[in-house]
Amino acid sequence: MNNLGIVKRNITRADRVAVDKLSRFGVATIHEAMGRVGLMKPYMRPIYNEARICGTAVTVLLQPGDNWMMHVAAEQLQPGDVAVAACTTDNADGFFGDLLATSFQARGAVGLIIDGGVRDVKDLTEMKFPVFSKAIHAKGTIKATLGSVNVPVVCAGAQVNPGDVVIADIDGVVVVPAAIAQQVADAAEAREANEGDKRAIFASGVLGLDYYKMREGLAKAGLRYVD
Amino acid sequence: MNNLGIVKRNITRADRVAVDKLSRFGVATIHEAMGRVGLMKPYMRPIYNEARICGTAVTVLLQPGDNWMMHVAAEQLQPGDVAVAACTTDNADGFFGDLLATSFQARGAVGLIIDGGVRDVKDLTEMKFPVFSKAIHAKGTIKATLGSVNVPVVCAGAQVNPGDVVIADIDGVVVVPAAIAQQVADAAEAREANEGDKRAIFASGVLGLDYYKMREGLAKAGLRYVD
Amino acid sequence: MNNLGIVKRNITRADRVAVDKLSRFGVATIHEAMGRVGLMKPYMRPIYNEARICGTAVTVLLQPGDNWMMHVAAEQLQPGDVAVAACTTDNADGFFGDLLATSFQARGAVGLIIDGGVRDVKDLTEMKFPVFSKAIHAKGTIKATLGSVNVPVVCAGAQVNPGDVVIADIDGVVVVPAAIAQQVADAAEAREANEGDKRAIFASGVLGLDYYKMREGLAKAGLRYVD
Amino acid sequence: MNNLGIVKRNITRADRVAVDKLSRFGVATIHEAMGRVGLMKPYMRPIYNEARICGTAVTVLLQPGDNWMMHVAAEQLQPGDVAVAACTTDNADGFFGDLLATSFQARGAVGLIIDGGVRDVKDLTEMKFPVFSKAIHAKGTIKATLGSVNVPVVCAGAQVNPGDVVIADIDGVVVVPAAIAQQVADAAEAREANEGDKRAIFASGVLGLDYYKMREGLAKAGLRYVD
Amino acid sequence: MNNLGIVKRNITRADRVAVDKLSRFGVATIHEAMGRVGLMKPYMRPIYNEARICGTAVTVLLQPGDNWMMHVAAEQLQPGDVAVAACTTDNADGFFGDLLATSFQARGAVGLIIDGGVRDVKDLTEMKFPVFSKAIHAKGTIKATLGSVNVPVVCAGAQVNPGDVVIADIDGVVVVPAAIAQQVADAAEAREANEGDKRAIFASGVLGLDYYKMREGLAKAGLRYVD
Amino acid sequence: MNNLGIVKRNITRADRVAVDKLSRFGVATIHEAMGRVGLMKPYMRPIYNEARICGTAVTVLLQPGDNWMMHVAAEQLQPGDVAVAACTTDNADGFFGDLLATSFQARGAVGLIIDGGVRDVKDLTEMKFPVFSKAIHAKGTIKATLGSVNVPVVCAGAQVNPGDVVIADIDGVVVVPAAIAQQVADAAEAREANEGDKRAIFASGVLGLDYYKMREGLAKAGLRYVD
Repeated sequence: MNNLGIVKRNITRADRVAVDKLSRFGVATIHEAMGRVGLMKPYMRPIYNEARICGTAVTVLLQPGDNWMMHVAAEQLQPGDVAVAACTTDNADGFFGDLLATSFQARGAVGLIIDGGVRDVKDLTEMKFPVFSKAIHAKGTIKATLGSVNVPVVCAGAQVNPGDVVIADIDGVVVVPAAIAQQVADAAEAREANEGDKRAIFASGVLGLDYYKMREGLAKAGLRYVD
Repeated sequence: MNNLGIVKRNITRADRVAVDKLSRFGVATIHEAMGRVGLMKPYMRPIYNEARICGTAVTVLLQPGDNWMMHVAAEQLQPGDVAVAACTTDNADGFFGDLLATSFQARGAVGLIIDGGVRDVKDLTEMKFPVFSKAIHAKGTIKATLGSVNVPVVCAGAQVNPGDVVIADIDGVVVVPAAIAQQVADAAEAREANEGDKRAIFASGVLGLDYYKMREGLAKAGLRYVD
Repeated sequence: MNNLGIVKRNITRADRVAVDKLSRFGVATIHEAMGRVGLMKPYMRPIYNEARICGTAVTVLLQPGDNWMMHVAAEQLQPGDVAVAACTTDNADGFFGDLLATSFQARGAVGLIIDGGVRDVKDLTEMKFPVFSKAIHAKGTIKATLGSVNVPVVCAGAQVNPGDVVIADIDGVVVVPAAIAQQVADAAEAREANEGDKRAIFASGVLGLDYYKMREGLAKAGLRYVD
Repeated sequence: MNNLGIVKRNITRADRVAVDKLSRFGVATIHEAMGRVGLMKPYMRPIYNEARICGTAVTVLLQPGDNWMMHVAAEQLQPGDVAVAACTTDNADGFFGDLLATSFQARGAVGLIIDGGVRDVKDLTEMKFPVFSKAIHAKGTIKATLGSVNVPVVCAGAQVNPGDVVIADIDGVVVVPAAIAQQVADAAEAREANEGDKRAIFASGVLGLDYYKMREGLAKAGLRYVD
Repeated sequence: MNNLGIVKRNITRADRVAVDKLSRFGVATIHEAMGRVGLMKPYMRPIYNEARICGTAVTVLLQPGDNWMMHVAAEQLQPGDVAVAACTTDNADGFFGDLLATSFQARGAVGLIIDGGVRDVKDLTEMKFPVFSKAIHAKGTIKATLGSVNVPVVCAGAQVNPGDVVIADIDGVVVVPAAIAQQVADAAEAREANEGDKRAIFASGVLGLDYYKMREGLAKAGLRYVD
Repeated sequence: MNNLGIVKRNITRADRVAVDKLSRFGVATIHEAMGRVGLMKPYMRPIYNEARICGTAVTVLLQPGDNWMMHVAAEQLQPGDVAVAACTTDNADGFFGDLLATSFQARGAVGLIIDGGVRDVKDLTEMKFPVFSKAIHAKGTIKATLGSVNVPVVCAGAQVNPGDVVIADIDGVVVVPAAIAQQVADAAEAREANEGDKRAIFASGVLGLDYYKMREGLAKAGLRYVD
C-alpha cells in the first residue's frame, strides 16, 4: 500500500540529448522556460560556490537519522545521474560524507541534492563532488529503517520523479519532468538567444521602461510622478 | 491617501562630501557613531564576501512576486545612488538579476539592498555589482501591480528615507539619515582615530579590564573571583 | 545560589597531549568516536571557510546586548584555550570584534565559539582569528550586567564545562569532556585508521551494500526490488 | 508545457464510502495506517482548536499575493470537497477570508488547507468553517496572475492530487491517495480496534516494556541499568 | 544626533472621533482601506484570542533585555493610548508583566503591542489587558540602558509615529498614520457598507467569478478549462 | 565512554517539601528567584492553555524518529515525577501520544516536557495530562536505537539533571537544580510576599518611576524630556 521499502530498478531517464542541452543553461533561465515552476525552496544551498549539477534523478526517501537507503541508492546510480534525497520528516543530520561520495562518484553520479544535512564538506569540496543541501551537520546516522529508492518524492518543496532532470547552481535547484525535458531545453535556448543583445542595450543606458514599453501600462495602472 | 503608485522624482540626497567620508568607515563603526541604531536585521547578507556599498538611497516599495517597480526605479537612479528595495509583505522571490544590474550600473548606481531575493548571482559577482539580500532565489517575478519609488520604506527592520546614506559591508547594513550624514561621518572619524593605537596596546597584552578601568565597576556590581 | 557574577580562576584543563591528538581529527570523526553526541546545533558557522579550532574551553556566560564578561574572560585565557560564549537568552548582537580578538590572541587563545553575533569579520579573517558563531551582526553591546566566566554553560544546545576540549571545523562544533579526552582521541584515531583503505575500496566501485554486508539485513527488513 | 493556467473540471474523487470511513479516524492513526507517510509539515495549524476536516481535494495553485484562483476553484467545489491551496513560492498573505468561505460553504465544501495565510479568522470561526494554514495574516491579495485548479500540487511538503482524501485535526494534516483510500480506511480501523483495550491495560499499570516485550531487544542492543 | 535617551512629552494624537470610528472595523478592512499597507508582520499574535486593541500610539524604544523605558513610558500614557514597543535588536525577553500592566491600566492605556516577549500571561488575561507580542517568555529584564519614548520606531516591520492609531485583532496589527485617520475610517466604513449584502449573495450560491465579472479577464489571461 | 545506552535507576530527587513549595509559584517568579537563569527557550509551549507542571525530573535522551526510550523511562517514573525528554538532534516527530500518557499517568507522573513533537493532543487534553513541547506533529516513531534515561540532558537550551525540579506554566519552563530547590522556593516566596501590595499601589496610579525611585538614575544616565 505504501511506497516505503521499495527499490525501483528500471526507471525512464530523461533523454540524454535534452539533459546535455539543459546543462548549458542556468537554473533561473530553465525555471522561466517552464513558466516559473519547478524550483526547490531557496534554503537549498551549495556546499561550495562553484558547485553545479545537471543530471537525471535517482530519488531516495530517507528516514530521520538514518542513511541506510543512501547505500541502496548507490547501486542504482548510473553515469550522469544525480541523487535526490528527501526525508519522511524534517531532519538535518549528516546523511552523507566522503565515503558515500567516493562510492557515488565511482558510479558516475554527478552530484547530490538533499533536503537534509551533509558532512565531510572539506573532502567533498576537494573531490569536487557538488552537493546542494539544507544544512551542513557533522551528526552521524544509523542504518535501521527502510525508506525507498526511485519512488516519487517531495524534496525541498518540489515534486521529483525518478528520471527527471535536476539542475542546480548558485541560484537554486530546479526540476524538469523527463517528459518535457527537450521542450524546456528548447525554450531555454530561445530565451537565452537574445540575452547578450539585451545586456548590450541596457549597458548603453536604454531603460527597461522603454525597451519593454512599460510606460503606458504603468500610467494606465495609475502611476503618478511627483516632484 | 496611501503611498502606493507614486514616484518621487526630486529627492534630497545626502551631501556628497559626507557620503564620501562615510565610505571610509565600516558599518560597525558608523552604527556606533550614531549611538547604536540604524542597522538592518542580520539576515541581510552580501552575495559575495567582498561586496561593499556606500551610496544615497533611492527607495523602492515592491509587491510580492512583482518587480515592475525595479524598472521604474532604474530611471530615478543617479551616479552614487544605491537602490533600497522593501516589499509590502515577506517574499523572497528573485526580484533582480543581471539585466537589471546592467541597467542600474549604466545609471551609475553602486549597489542594491533588497529585503527579498536576487538571482543571476554568478553574473552579478562577475560584474562586481554588490547586492545585500535576504535570499538568493531563482524564482522569477511578474510586472502587474504598482508599488512606489522614493517613498519612505521599512527595509529589513530599518526605516529608510530617499536620499539617506546606506552603507553595507560584511558586518551588515546601516542607514544614516541624510540630515546627520556629516555629523555621523565626523563621529565615525573620531571613533576610528585611536583604533590603531588600541590595537597595538591590546596586542602588547594589556587587558581591556585595565585599559578601560573596568575592575572597580565589576567589583561594585558584585563580581566574585573564586578558585 | 546562582552561577551569575562568578569568575572561576582555577579550572582543570583537558590534558594537553589529548588535546593535541584530538586536533588531528575532524569534528565528524570525533563526534562518532564519542557515540554520536556532543555536537552543537548546525546554525553555528565559521566566519571564514578555513576556520578551524581545537582548544580547551574557557566558558563565558553573557547577558543580552552586553559583552562585559568578554573582557573578564580575556584575563582567564591561557595559550591553547578557546573562549566558549553562551548567553542567558537568544541574542545575536555583535559581542566580539577586532579589539577583543587582538586581546584574546595576545593571551594565546586559539579562537571563539559564540552562540551570538560577531563583527569586524573582515579584520578577524585577516588576523586569522577563527570564530564560529550564530550570526554576523554589527550591533554593538554595553557593559552593564554581570554574567560569569568558567561556569558550566549550554552553548548552541551543547553542555560545556570549563576545561573541556572544543573542536570546530566546517562540519560544525563538538565538545569533548575533559575526563574522556584521551579516550576519545584514541577512539578517533582507531576510526580513522582504515579510512584511506575504505576510500580506495569504494573508489574501485565496491558498494557499501557489499562492503558492509547490508543486503541480508535489508532483505530481512523487507526491502523489495521491483522493475 | 507547464501546468499553470489550467482548470481541470473532471477529477476522480476518492470513493465516498472510503472517505466517510476515514472521517472516523484521527490523523495520527491514518498516517500510521499508511506506513508513516503522507503528512504535511507541522507548521500547518488549525485556526481554531476544534477544527476538523475530512474531504476530497480540489487543489489550487496560487501565485504570491494573488488569490484569483481561489475564485476559480470555488466553481469546481462539490459537496464534501476540501480546497487544498499551494503557492508557487513561500508567501503568507491572507488569500482567504469570510466572503470566500461563504462561497465555499455554499458549494458544500468542508474546509480549506492552505500553505499560506488566511484572515477574517473570527468570522471563519463563527461560521465553523475549518481552515488549516501556515499563518494568520490580514494582508490582502490581488487578482492578476494565473495559477491552476486541480493540477497536482505540493502543499506544505506533501504531494496532493485532485480527488485525494485530506484529513486534518489538531495533530496535523494527512493526504491519502484516492486509489488506496479504502485500503487505508480498513487499516486504520484495524489499528484502532484494540486501542481501547490497550489504554485499559496501560492504565492498570502494565508497562509498554512488558506489553510490547521490549526488554530482550533492549538488552540485545546493549542497554545497561546502573544504580 | 541620535534618538536614544529622549522622551517626547507632547505628541499629537490622532483625532478621537476618527479613532472611535476606526475601532468599529477589523484590521483586514482597515488595511485594505489604506491600500494594503501598514501591517505589522504576522508573527505578532494576541496573548488570548479575544484580545482587541484600538488606540493612539505612545511609542517605546527598548534595549535588549532591558525594560527601563517601559516605566518611563507609563507616565506618558493617557486614556485611550496603546503602548507600542520596539527594540534596537531582536530580543524576546519578557519585558512586560502584570505589575506594568496594572500601571498601564491605571493610566487608561488600552493595550500593548510589543516586538518582544511578555510574561504573566495568565494575570494579563484575567485583567483583560490585551497584548500582541512576538513571544511569551518568562525571562526577566534589567533597568540599565536608555532607550526612548515617543520617537518614531519600526515595530515588527511597520513604521509607527507617536500618536498614530494602532488597531489589533486576531488577524494582526495595523498602523494608521494620525494625519489620515479620519480618511481611512471613512474608507473602511464605505468598504464595509455592502459586506452584509455580499455575504448573502455568496451564501445564495452566486460565485465570485460572476459577481466580480472575472470570467472575461481570466479567459484573456489564457485560462484553459480541460476535462 | 559515552552516556548513551544507560538507564540510571537510583536518582536523588529534590526534596518533596521544596517541590511542593515551588508548586505554589509561577515560572517567572521562580526564574527571578534564581537570578534570571534556568529557563528553557520560549518555543516550548503548552498543548493546552491551562497546562501546569511542577515535578522532579526523570530525564530521557531520545534519538531522532525513535521513542524507544520513552517506554524505558516509564518504568523509572515515580509519583510526582515529570519526564523531561531531549533528543540527540533537532527533530519534531510525534514521540508521545495517548497510550504513553496513560502509562505515565498510571505511574503517577505529572506531565511531560519534550524538545520534540507530541500527538493525540485531543486525548491528552481530555486526560488532563499536561505537555510542553516544541511541536504538535502526528508523525510516528520507531523503536530501534538506544538513548538513555536519567543522564544529564540539554532540553530546549536548559541543562537538566535527573531529580531537578521542573516547573512549567503558560509563561514557559524553568529548571531548578535539586540542591537549591528549598533555597529557591524560599526566595520565590519572599519575592511574592509583597506582590499584592505592589499591585494595589500601581492600581492606585503610583508610577514605577516613583515607587522604584528611578528618576534620579534616569537623569544621571542622560534621559532628556523634550516637548
